[in-house]
Amino acid sequence: MTTYAVIGTGGVGGFYGIHLARTGSTVHFLIRSAGDPRAPLTLRSGDRTWQVQPGRDCTVHRRVATMPQVDVVLVAVKATANQQVAAAAGSLVRPGGGLVLLQNGIGCEPLYAAGMPGGSELVGGLAFLASHRDSPSSFVHVDYGALTLGRYAEGYQPTAAGPVMRRLADDLARAEVPVALVDDLLAARWQKLVWNIPFNGLSVLLDARTDALMGNQASRSLIADLMAEVVAAAAADGRVLPANLAEQMLALTATMKPYAPSMKLDYDAGRPMEVEAMYAAAIERAGRSGAGMPRTQMLADALTFMGVRR
Amino acid sequence: MTTYAVIGTGGVGGFYGIHLARTGSTVHFLIRSAGDPRAPLTLRSGDRTWQVQPGRDCTVHRRVATMPQVDVVLVAVKATANQQVAAAAGSLVRPGGGLVLLQNGIGCEPLYAAGMPGGSELVGGLAFLASHRDSPSSFVHVDYGALTLGRYAEGYQPTAAGPVMRRLADDLARAEVPVALVDDLLAARWQKLVWNIPFNGLSVLLDARTDALMGNQASRSLIADLMAEVVAAAAADGRVLPANLAEQMLALTATMKPYAPSMKLDYDAGRPMEVEAMYAAAIERAGRSGAGMPRTQMLADALTFMGVRR
Repeated sequence: MTTYAVIGTGGVGGFYGIHLARTGSTVHFLIRSAGDPRAPLTLRSGDRTWQVQPGRDCTVHRRVATMPQVDVVLVAVKATANQQVAAAAGSLVRPGGGLVLLQNGIGCEPLYAAGMPGGSELVGGLAFLASHRDSPSSFVHVDYGALTLGRYAEGYQPTAAGPVMRRLADDLARAEVPVALVDDLLAARWQKLVWNIPFNGLSVLLDARTDALMGNQASRSLIADLMAEVVAAAAADGRVLPANLAEQMLALTATMKPYAPSMKLDYDAGRPMEVEAMYAAAIERAGRSGAGMPRTQMLADALTFMGVRR
Repeated sequence: MTTYAVIGTGGVGGFYGIHLARTGSTVHFLIRSAGDPRAPLTLRSGDRTWQVQPGRDCTVHRRVATMPQVDVVLVAVKATANQQVAAAAGSLVRPGGGLVLLQNGIGCEPLYAAGMPGGSELVGGLAFLASHRDSPSSFVHVDYGALTLGRYAEGYQPTAAGPVMRRLADDLARAEVPVALVDDLLAARWQKLVWNIPFNGLSVLLDARTDALMGNQASRSLIADLMAEVVAAAAADGRVLPANLAEQMLALTATMKPYAPSMKLDYDAGRPMEVEAMYAAAIERAGRSGAGMPRTQMLADALTFMGVRR
């Protein structure tokens, strides 16, 4: 039986952690705001509800200090908290274990790599998931749930799947959560940015959900331009993404339930936005190869303005 | 004594028209929404107020049909009304007279040229003016007022000043309104776009006045990037603007009274925005010379989205 720690028990960490706990894995949740650490954790999804009971199915901790070392640490905090969280999260990895960084953005793995024990496995995870937390112990799954995992090696060299990510995939399979294992984490991160860069930023800037953004010719054109810019930046960074990726994403988004991306939820709730990890880091990587991202820069600047003003 | 018609008696047309009328020119104002065409027109500026009395100092018309032909037609409608206004405005130009298009944007002169009598003079005008109308007969001057005039020749060929624009300059001089006569209207239009493209669009997109936009590092950087893009587009279109123009404009704006650009006033009041004349036409001209304007295009798309949604 695998032991897990979940650092960042929000919409993402709550979803995967509860699915692991309800199917028999040992899960330690960090919930700093937990009113009563013995209260059950609830995950609603359509007309289904799962509940896991601390003391029986899982453990809830208010502080990292009380958490044990585990096989796999799932980090699902916002990228804005990485500096604050990385060392403590790494210290929970047992020798030979691993850490999975379930986060959007690009370029944050090295910070975590520095805090982990020698020989442990660092994995980047990309959640294709619409979910949110509506109280410290209650989580709502809206749609999707698939996870893409790729092992991190220095400089984002492509590398074969490791035992930790295979174990997580096996454990999640028992909860019927689909997991894809990839060799090229950097390509996966760029690929997700093709969607995240336009939709997260524009949802904030234009105060619009996916349906409004897809329903207007001007914003569709703007999204397509941004996607093309990210695809070109990825190519400059050595990752040629699949042809027609942008078209496919647009077509898929048009069929989605109307959806507020995570950055819009963050902005509306007064939380910091992941502008650094999702925008500035991508622009910086592309710039190293001489590729400009003027549209992405513009969006980042506008978001920074909005974040500061608020 | 010069006779004038003012088509579009808003913040701009009201300001120049009242200054002409109060200093002895014969001015026919078109005010479709005039409650009582005999009510005085008032212009407030700081602690000064000027009033011109229809029947004595000027004439107010509710329809073009009652307006006489005049020496100079001042068109100060929004660019969004050009299609609707151009032919009627041209028909008011007496043989040997002229029409002055007091408008932002670029590329609208040919539409007016087509509706004017042979041998008449078409002039482009750029108002550096902060003013607005607060009732159909009452106008508020906030700051500035200088006018730049350049004669239009086919294809925006540079061309010497004509008698109509000199006459307007002389008449405005009596009201102490500064006028600059330039030979290169296209350069003047591009130069004004260097300010208008960033500040008009961003004031709407970020719901901010000039002081907020100048007071934040991210938005200042975004404005500078947009200005550089417009300067490069102008160069591609054959108009090399003065070095340091953008810097000078930024420095000047930092000293301005907090100011909501005209597009923000339009958006907030539910009026159409001049996206076509101020953005699309510039992008189209630059594109003819192979220059891309990705940031400007992005702003235009975002504004179009906002205009449609509202």
